[in-house]
Amino acid sequence: MTISIETAREVLQSQPFSKLLNAELVRFSSECVELRLPVSDQVKQQNGFVHGGVVSYAADNALTFAGGAVLGLAVVTSEFKINYVRPAKGHALIARASVIHAGKTQAVCRCEVFSLTSDREVLCAVAQGTIAAIHGCNNA
Amino acid sequence: MTISIETAREVLQSQPFSKLLNAELVRFSSECVELRLPVSDQVKQQNGFVHGGVVSYAADNALTFAGGAVLGLAVVTSEFKINYVRPAKGHALIARASVIHAGKTQAVCRCEVFSLTSDREVLCAVAQGTIAAIHGCNNA
Amino acid sequence: MTISIETAREVLQSQPFSKLLNAELVRFSSECVELRLPVSDQVKQQNGFVHGGVVSYAADNALTFAGGAVLGLAVVTSEFKINYVRPAKGHALIARASVIHAGKTQAVCRCEVFSLTSDREVLCAVAQGTIAAIHGCNNA
Amino acid sequence: MTISIETAREVLQSQPFSKLLNAELVRFSSECVELRLPVSDQVKQQNGFVHGGVVSYAADNALTFAGGAVLGLAVVTSEFKINYVRPAKGHALIARASVIHAGKTQAVCRCEVFSLTSDREVLCAVAQGTIAAIHGCNNA
Repeated sequence: MTISIETAREVLQSQPFSKLLNAELVRFSSECVELRLPVSDQVKQQNGFVHGGVVSYAADNALTFAGGAVLGLAVVTSEFKINYVRPAKGHALIARASVIHAGKTQAVCRCEVFSLTSDREVLCAVAQGTIAAIHGCNNA
Repeated sequence: MTISIETAREVLQSQPFSKLLNAELVRFSSECVELRLPVSDQVKQQNGFVHGGVVSYAADNALTFAGGAVLGLAVVTSEFKINYVRPAKGHALIARASVIHAGKTQAVCRCEVFSLTSDREVLCAVAQGTIAAIHGCNNA
Repeated sequence: MTISIETAREVLQSQPFSKLLNAELVRFSSECVELRLPVSDQVKQQNGFVHGGVVSYAADNALTFAGGAVLGLAVVTSEFKINYVRPAKGHALIARASVIHAGKTQAVCRCEVFSLTSDREVLCAVAQGTIAAIHGCNNA
Repeated sequence: MTISIETAREVLQSQPFSKLLNAELVRFSSECVELRLPVSDQVKQQNGFVHGGVVSYAADNALTFAGGAVLGLAVVTSEFKINYVRPAKGHALIARASVIHAGKTQAVCRCEVFSLTSDREVLCAVAQGTIAAIHGCNNA
């Protein structure tokens, strides 16, 4: 099963919250998923950095699409963990995720989130989590 | 050091992303922090549930304020982990966080996120993480 | 399905590593699982505290049995996260775990690990993780 | 500051629990730390696989030494998260860890744990965590 990036983009566009944040899928394959979103004032916290909740959204969603690339797009994030390593600033966030191991109904994925200033990427967070197929055996 | 809920609310209001999501602090003490946000269409994903990224924002921010209640409000979330246990729906999200252990510069906190339908709270996620004082020894 | 503590103890006794550490199940119910192990010199690290790997073993195994109390004993830990909050010392470790949410094939559980000195319990770690039924849809 | 592998091995040898498990440091540099331990019957669980607690010990300790390679050897694991992706079997466990980001007093590290059968390595777990310098600002 290979899912096209166009199909994946339709799913992303059908998420009102992702549209609110102007997130877009730049890459989508079983090797790597890349999600980008612009850094506007509205995604910041009190010190002018990107809010941690936006960084975690980017990680969470990139992990989900990475899992979706191998399990099919009817997936959810079951759980994830994120370490913030630097304040996120610049003009865009880039979240790149890939699959570490995939079973039939779950995939363990990793993600790195970078902030983009001019053309320079700076690592700001790393995440690891489990993606589950909805019609498989998820937690619900 | 006791920080008033009014001071904590000012910090929350100075976060553009929290204002975008209409988050508010309902409780703020060293015992428990409660953050609420309304569930509007714009925070949803493609199946009509609250986007996981919004649930993780709520957990992250409630954890931060819980740590802030004991460490002072100049804090950041260093890392956290979240397990989603049910799809979040209803008309509001409630994130309640408390401190498990506080040192001088870091606190380990836990959080439960509920969705509110009528007056019924349903657990939708649990989180655990580390909050660090900014002017202490953080990762930056 | 109710599993007796005797049955659970047989499973624990069939784990050579748990026998090596002299772990025992003190409580086993769908409400709470308590695992204890004595602190001998052989479980220590270089500064005389209990090795973190032993604390994580206790958390991991208590989480597994907590999940097993509701899912049946053919379970594995899929993933967990642990925060160490104090060095573990004293003469025993106590890990208490409980189920936060159980589905048909997975359970999300939490655990607190205490060190016991005389009769005083001191919290040394907190953990949260996912337990999966082996014959359900696990990752393998 | 460069720490020799001999010095790191002395620290490992001063951990009674690591000696109990016959763990050894095969590589130790700021680029990569590799910890190995033989799979004897005593580290197994009831189905003949390596006990998860042993896998988590290997991940935890490899993470600690990876952090120690950049922060100095007086370090502890503050927290980590592990996903088990396959049952661990074979005749040895190999845990390889590296630093993702290092500050002055903390480092965020990642680890992969493999089981070794003949000469074939099979991934069985991935971990991510925070290592803290003891004399810096840790949680204690």
